[in-house]
Amino acid sequence: MTAIGIYGSAGRMGRAIVDAIEAIGGTLAGGVDAGDDPLPLARQADVLVDFSAQSALESHLHAARAARTPIVIGTTGLTTAHQAAIDDAASDIAILQTGNTSLGVTLLSLLVRDAAARLGPDWDIEIVEMHHRDKVDAPSGTAILLGEMAAAGRSTTLGEVRVDGRAGLTGVRSEGTIGVSSLRGGSVVGDHSVVFATDGERIELIHRADDRSIFARGAVKAAHWLVDQSPGRYRMEDVLGL
Amino acid sequence: MTAIGIYGSAGRMGRAIVDAIEAIGGTLAGGVDAGDDPLPLARQADVLVDFSAQSALESHLHAARAARTPIVIGTTGLTTAHQAAIDDAASDIAILQTGNTSLGVTLLSLLVRDAAARLGPDWDIEIVEMHHRDKVDAPSGTAILLGEMAAAGRSTTLGEVRVDGRAGLTGVRSEGTIGVSSLRGGSVVGDHSVVFATDGERIELIHRADDRSIFARGAVKAAHWLVDQSPGRYRMEDVLGL
Amino acid sequence: MTAIGIYGSAGRMGRAIVDAIEAIGGTLAGGVDAGDDPLPLARQADVLVDFSAQSALESHLHAARAARTPIVIGTTGLTTAHQAAIDDAASDIAILQTGNTSLGVTLLSLLVRDAAARLGPDWDIEIVEMHHRDKVDAPSGTAILLGEMAAAGRSTTLGEVRVDGRAGLTGVRSEGTIGVSSLRGGSVVGDHSVVFATDGERIELIHRADDRSIFARGAVKAAHWLVDQSPGRYRMEDVLGL
Amino acid sequence: MTAIGIYGSAGRMGRAIVDAIEAIGGTLAGGVDAGDDPLPLARQADVLVDFSAQSALESHLHAARAARTPIVIGTTGLTTAHQAAIDDAASDIAILQTGNTSLGVTLLSLLVRDAAARLGPDWDIEIVEMHHRDKVDAPSGTAILLGEMAAAGRSTTLGEVRVDGRAGLTGVRSEGTIGVSSLRGGSVVGDHSVVFATDGERIELIHRADDRSIFARGAVKAAHWLVDQSPGRYRMEDVLGL
Repeated sequence: MTAIGIYGSAGRMGRAIVDAIEAIGGTLAGGVDAGDDPLPLARQADVLVDFSAQSALESHLHAARAARTPIVIGTTGLTTAHQAAIDDAASDIAILQTGNTSLGVTLLSLLVRDAAARLGPDWDIEIVEMHHRDKVDAPSGTAILLGEMAAAGRSTTLGEVRVDGRAGLTGVRSEGTIGVSSLRGGSVVGDHSVVFATDGERIELIHRADDRSIFARGAVKAAHWLVDQSPGRYRMEDVLGL
Repeated sequence: MTAIGIYGSAGRMGRAIVDAIEAIGGTLAGGVDAGDDPLPLARQADVLVDFSAQSALESHLHAARAARTPIVIGTTGLTTAHQAAIDDAASDIAILQTGNTSLGVTLLSLLVRDAAARLGPDWDIEIVEMHHRDKVDAPSGTAILLGEMAAAGRSTTLGEVRVDGRAGLTGVRSEGTIGVSSLRGGSVVGDHSVVFATDGERIELIHRADDRSIFARGAVKAAHWLVDQSPGRYRMEDVLGL
Repeated sequence: MTAIGIYGSAGRMGRAIVDAIEAIGGTLAGGVDAGDDPLPLARQADVLVDFSAQSALESHLHAARAARTPIVIGTTGLTTAHQAAIDDAASDIAILQTGNTSLGVTLLSLLVRDAAARLGPDWDIEIVEMHHRDKVDAPSGTAILLGEMAAAGRSTTLGEVRVDGRAGLTGVRSEGTIGVSSLRGGSVVGDHSVVFATDGERIELIHRADDRSIFARGAVKAAHWLVDQSPGRYRMEDVLGL
Repeated sequence: MTAIGIYGSAGRMGRAIVDAIEAIGGTLAGGVDAGDDPLPLARQADVLVDFSAQSALESHLHAARAARTPIVIGTTGLTTAHQAAIDDAASDIAILQTGNTSLGVTLLSLLVRDAAARLGPDWDIEIVEMHHRDKVDAPSGTAILLGEMAAAGRSTTLGEVRVDGRAGLTGVRSEGTIGVSSLRGGSVVGDHSVVFATDGERIELIHRADDRSIFARGAVKAAHWLVDQSPGRYRMEDVLGL
């Protein structure tokens, strides 16, 4: 049974990962927090999962590399220096680094890119997301990710074609634009819809997150997958077998 | 069988009403257009439906009143002078005047008002509408109507609480606001959703117009209902038996 | 601040109610479980919430009545003897007994009845529900409740008009029937949609339960409301101010 | 400009194709109906579209082949003898034969197969479709197509895993099954949803047909694409550039 070690085990995500290991399978090799020596855990674990602070990333990479243990990195706010350190370590160990560990969102983003690439410009694209009332920014990072994938499918960038919040005399819709709308209310964890509409028909591609545990579950699934991979850098879409 | 007379029979709505009479029931008493004398038709019909120009409204009202024939008025862009003329005629005949002859939208707007009135302020309200790519303004008139009904249920006005198009650092949602989002694409006739969201649950009240014929159908149903009413002014909600 | 006492405080719902009091407001007057004397808590609390075993119901009612303390009863599986005991106690204290303490579902069921009553028989009614993969029966109790409310709006019963699971050569739809479909998958807490469809338009009335806590929250809100009521029997719809 | 010839031009689909050519582009090379000689039109047209009777298929293939003109075949109810004749003719001309000419449904079916292949068996699959009240069979052909594509993504067949209409004591959901539910009501042209649900998240892939014209539009788009292809057999997914 795969032994999973957690860096940042005392944080909210760290605790969620403990629950996810119990639900999905694997054993807990142990947890380490800020200030602890990461090397013993790296030696003991078959694979590591890191959701700790950016400041600890380099020492975690160093330990993983020394122990030749693959590592899933979900820590956010990484700099280009962090990315370079990851690239460097990836010559010796398998590393999966991602800003979104939900397998469902990852798959949806791929379907959106495919649909955008295959449907002609007479299919208009609109994105709608809904999150809880305490979210302070709009649109969500996932909505932007989906918009970027739709734009990529059409060989452009979201920045070129994005239209936010229509109100007033907008005129007719410009071909090729991607509208993005954000709803806020209640305790919604996160719903995202991408609508493709043309004359007489529509396709809607939707993801609904019912529970925040999906991010921990995705990380644990990624860890199970990563344990068998050769050294190199990987992404969540690789876990889906593309 | 109820004989229905049409003022404005050569217009798009006039022709749609002929089809709706065939589908729903009743006989066509005849049609009259700009320049024709409206009185013979008013005498011949059991009830009249008027979707013609504002400029003809007063002569149509005069004819209906002279013939003691009820009249459904769907003409838009009416002035306060027109409204006063309708009030005056309603002392002798039954008149139903409305800006939206869809029975479904009418019912939905009532459900929205009820829900808003009964659910506490911890239920956040969001409205989303989608229309075809050629619509030049946002939000739709129906979205505004639904927002006004939601606001009325909470003893306020849409103008006081409306939030359009969120983007950027919006901060947390303000209690009591109503968000309105507009999607555009394809040939969508008109979809409207009103979402009520609180901790752990959501209610969504949705109307989908699949075909523009619903407006003509609603007018014909209103005509069948109006033929039995006493003189006075009526609204679409009255047809729903409130 | 309203002091709420819990009968059945060690059960899953009992613990959820403690959390809901913390979230919504009020103080915890205390909790009592099987075997404990219910009277001291009844004297100490402003209002009681009971989600314990049927076997304890009569002693709980007796205590509540002796202390003149209102009581919300969410215990399921009640017999006609239990109902008679509740009726009897309701001559002295306010009692709200219900099989579903979600305010959202309660409101939706009222909207469904209203819509069914106001829309003519040319609006076909379909109900769809989705629940998690471990649910062993179909359709859900809430789907049946919604179907009964729709049927009541049309002066019939669900038993008369219900159609389950279409497959094969079904023939055209019979006017007045109500279709009920059940989806199962994942960990869905409970989604319910009631669709009203006629020529060219549709109304969809939807409830989404994202979290089981809504049942405890509804019970606590009902308790806050019940504390001010005169003796008698009440239902969840009364809390919504009908 | 591409000149499109229609076999079966007097039928409902034939007339819809004339409208679609006007909307999308191309010129009408002419139409031919039962009993007419198909060869002159085959010589005159750049590409043919055939939605006529099965009995006429072989003479249409013969004419197309003689004239070296590509042909889109949407005629349904074909036998294995018809398929063999198509295979034979495809050695000389480009032929696209399909049971569903909607580009949106074609794309959705591919997305469904991909999603089913990439998501593990812990993602449960449910299909829901809604059609108008006059449809006499269930589930729809498109729902079956989508179910087959989902099953193919998991290396099984729909026949092996399909579950229709749950009612009563169903027990827990069996892993790997695909539920299919059919709703009927109003004048709905055709809505299809494929739901993938796992712990804490869901993906929904939806197609909404708002207008029957999409089938004619898809056929015309296929004709424009087919005119440039080498001899051989093609499918609708080829038009989407896979």
